[in-house]
Amino acid sequence: MTAYSESELAFLSIEQAGQLLGRREISPIDLVEASLARIERWNPSLYAYLTVLPEGARRQARTAEREILRGRARGPLHGIPISLKDNFWTRGIRTTAGSKILADFVPQADSDVAKRVARSGAILLGKTNMHEFAYGITGENPHYGSSRNPWARDRISGGSSGGSAVAVGTGMGFASVGTDTGGSIRIPSALCGIVGLKPTFGLVSTAGVVPLGITFDHAGPIARSVTDACILLEAIAGKYPSGETRPDHRKLRRNRPRRFRVGLPKEFYFERLDGEVRRLVEAAAKKFESLGARVEEVSLPRLTGAINQATYAVIAEANEYHESQGYYPARAAEYGDDVRDHLEWGHKLLAVDYLGAQPKRREVREDFEAAFEEVDVILAPTSPIPAPRIGENQVRAPGERETTVRAELLRLTRPANVTGFPAISIPCGFTREGLSVGLQLLGPRWGEARLLAIALAYEQATEWHERHPNLS
Amino acid sequence: MTAYSESELAFLSIEQAGQLLGRREISPIDLVEASLARIERWNPSLYAYLTVLPEGARRQARTAEREILRGRARGPLHGIPISLKDNFWTRGIRTTAGSKILADFVPQADSDVAKRVARSGAILLGKTNMHEFAYGITGENPHYGSSRNPWARDRISGGSSGGSAVAVGTGMGFASVGTDTGGSIRIPSALCGIVGLKPTFGLVSTAGVVPLGITFDHAGPIARSVTDACILLEAIAGKYPSGETRPDHRKLRRNRPRRFRVGLPKEFYFERLDGEVRRLVEAAAKKFESLGARVEEVSLPRLTGAINQATYAVIAEANEYHESQGYYPARAAEYGDDVRDHLEWGHKLLAVDYLGAQPKRREVREDFEAAFEEVDVILAPTSPIPAPRIGENQVRAPGERETTVRAELLRLTRPANVTGFPAISIPCGFTREGLSVGLQLLGPRWGEARLLAIALAYEQATEWHERHPNLS
Repeated sequence: MTAYSESELAFLSIEQAGQLLGRREISPIDLVEASLARIERWNPSLYAYLTVLPEGARRQARTAEREILRGRARGPLHGIPISLKDNFWTRGIRTTAGSKILADFVPQADSDVAKRVARSGAILLGKTNMHEFAYGITGENPHYGSSRNPWARDRISGGSSGGSAVAVGTGMGFASVGTDTGGSIRIPSALCGIVGLKPTFGLVSTAGVVPLGITFDHAGPIARSVTDACILLEAIAGKYPSGETRPDHRKLRRNRPRRFRVGLPKEFYFERLDGEVRRLVEAAAKKFESLGARVEEVSLPRLTGAINQATYAVIAEANEYHESQGYYPARAAEYGDDVRDHLEWGHKLLAVDYLGAQPKRREVREDFEAAFEEVDVILAPTSPIPAPRIGENQVRAPGERETTVRAELLRLTRPANVTGFPAISIPCGFTREGLSVGLQLLGPRWGEARLLAIALAYEQATEWHERHPNLS
Repeated sequence: MTAYSESELAFLSIEQAGQLLGRREISPIDLVEASLARIERWNPSLYAYLTVLPEGARRQARTAEREILRGRARGPLHGIPISLKDNFWTRGIRTTAGSKILADFVPQADSDVAKRVARSGAILLGKTNMHEFAYGITGENPHYGSSRNPWARDRISGGSSGGSAVAVGTGMGFASVGTDTGGSIRIPSALCGIVGLKPTFGLVSTAGVVPLGITFDHAGPIARSVTDACILLEAIAGKYPSGETRPDHRKLRRNRPRRFRVGLPKEFYFERLDGEVRRLVEAAAKKFESLGARVEEVSLPRLTGAINQATYAVIAEANEYHESQGYYPARAAEYGDDVRDHLEWGHKLLAVDYLGAQPKRREVREDFEAAFEEVDVILAPTSPIPAPRIGENQVRAPGERETTVRAELLRLTRPANVTGFPAISIPCGFTREGLSVGLQLLGPRWGEARLLAIALAYEQATEWHERHPNLS
């Protein structure tokens, strides 16, 4: 029994929840029950979870309660209910990767992330919905239903970690771990109005993740605030190279830089943005100036074109997995149309094109490295457009020919996957229709500590992250 | 003026030459003049060198003489005339890679190997002939003439480092640095009756080498004895990981193991060897037993098939270079027929096949690692056949269908390129026709010190390396 309402409990920050748990004003069981109640109520229409684990979560909550009462607190995630995207192997728990092909796959081992989450004392509520095999950016899913945007349910959640973003954004869990191969953490976080961090390549282990493109795959936190994302990152991150600063959520505020430099990348073509997105991002740049930032243009001269060529490499790596597993072409009929189309195309890609992408990746990396000599962070929208309607395939950007929703959604997030640099999406406002818009900040390799501190400075100066969708 | 004949000087071991230089019984100028005289006499019929540098070599010899006289000896290669295969960039010196396309290419920088050789005080006699772009194993060259086997001039030298092996085997220089992507150091060394070492992948820098397949390319020494090969390796090798033993030619004899284990790999199919090669290699295995070795069969269960699939990767990497440089297909007519055929085929290779080769490589590596838990070295022939005639394309192994000379020559050397393990070829006898046969010893990663000590033990117990071809 607690003095807090279900909704108050469900939307606590992880720090607040930890304080209340520590003072024994609430129990992990309260947090789990509040989360489960919301899942029961909203999941049937939002399609956030593919697998809910009420029994397991309650059992873990009782264990956590006991440990906390005995003074054996494990850390800031102890007793906090969270979720994992359904492409993280979980021992004894179905792991579909959003596919029909793996509909009945029950791994015999945990992914590294699942192990680290368990060690942190966090409680696993369930496995979240996703674009099939993470091979798409909308979150539409022909097998299990498309996760819905909580700000407008006829709109996409974004993907591929769509279920994770919907769950976290609607209080069906405090945070989630997603994966990001072209933008799959950041895009749904932006479209759902929450925080998503794609860390430096290699920082969070992808061992035991159903792969998409192994040299582009990243795992990272999805949360409702920068501090919550940092707490989850601390739990799942591996080692930093010596000399690099490991982020610490307790120090983020203190480490906020007084003066810093923000770069607007010329080759991200702000003039082609949706008008409302552009307005909000330019307002965010102004806000950074008021926080002590010098905002200037930076150039990434070899970006354009290189990104498309680098994308060949993801597609080829995806085919290698699906073909070597015997899924494609043998079980082609079991894929959704979009994923099958990608695999058909990917099968024909030439080895020289795959290999030719590697020097292009290096060039883009060098361009970013040069830019990070000039600025601390690069600022851009996460998505150049607000959430499109479910089923919409084409979009026209200002002054541009019509393009695919997929290409447009990926346009600004792909560079961080091609290069491996960390990038965070944080809320920066709403369109007149009430759709959330995300701001993307990119930092240098292993630069999460500073990137998160700068993101937190912006978050504290705004209130966008405090708005929650009205689901009633 | 010296008491030694040209031929005595030209066939000194590097250690002997160094002692005579140290005692000032001879000068570097004597060594250079003896080498140049032989090049002048034999190169027009043996096609060992593409570029001879008499002026540069004499100038370097005078400098070395001065330094030695002043007591500024640099090390065991100081004043020793050697050569470089013509795919190592040499500043201001034409570097053709045996091709017409690079016939007039003069690099503005040195390869890492050229820099290290210069630092050792060795004298550069010239750049040696090679299979075009290192993309072939016979040493036949349609643009510059095919390097000739010194034991039978109508036979191939082997390649691609054919010119290096011919030069070293005939006293046109004391040693040479070659490259080996599928066997290109070991095969010509075996067919020319000398010693060739392909070191652990990454030990000798390939920066500034015209590439063939960048994840398979190795640089390494070609010499007339194990000790000479070790001396050259010491000069060109980079760092060993901590904990690994760097080879030292002064300690090789001392470090000879009393008891050791030699493995005969089942999947190398000794029953398919040419009868004379088999007889000589089995005699070598017996010799090892007399030296204290236990000889036993080992198995590499996943080798067969995997090697062919891994070979796709070399071909794709070769195409990536030739296409990204704009050589292929734009200048297809300028290639020899065989290389153009490879490039035509390589262009069509699929990215999934390239990527599919990677797990196969890992499997073969694991099989070898398991074998090296059982034995210190693996013993096999270097080539399953003695040197074929120039122009011969097909060969029939005992009990086998007809196969290509290329495939048969590469059969036993490729595994060390696929895995990156070090492998050395040393002379083990002659066929009744007088063709030299090479014995191949493979060791574990970074295991050069022990591999060379075991090779030296065999060399000291035999006299094959003391025979030189009669050129008159």
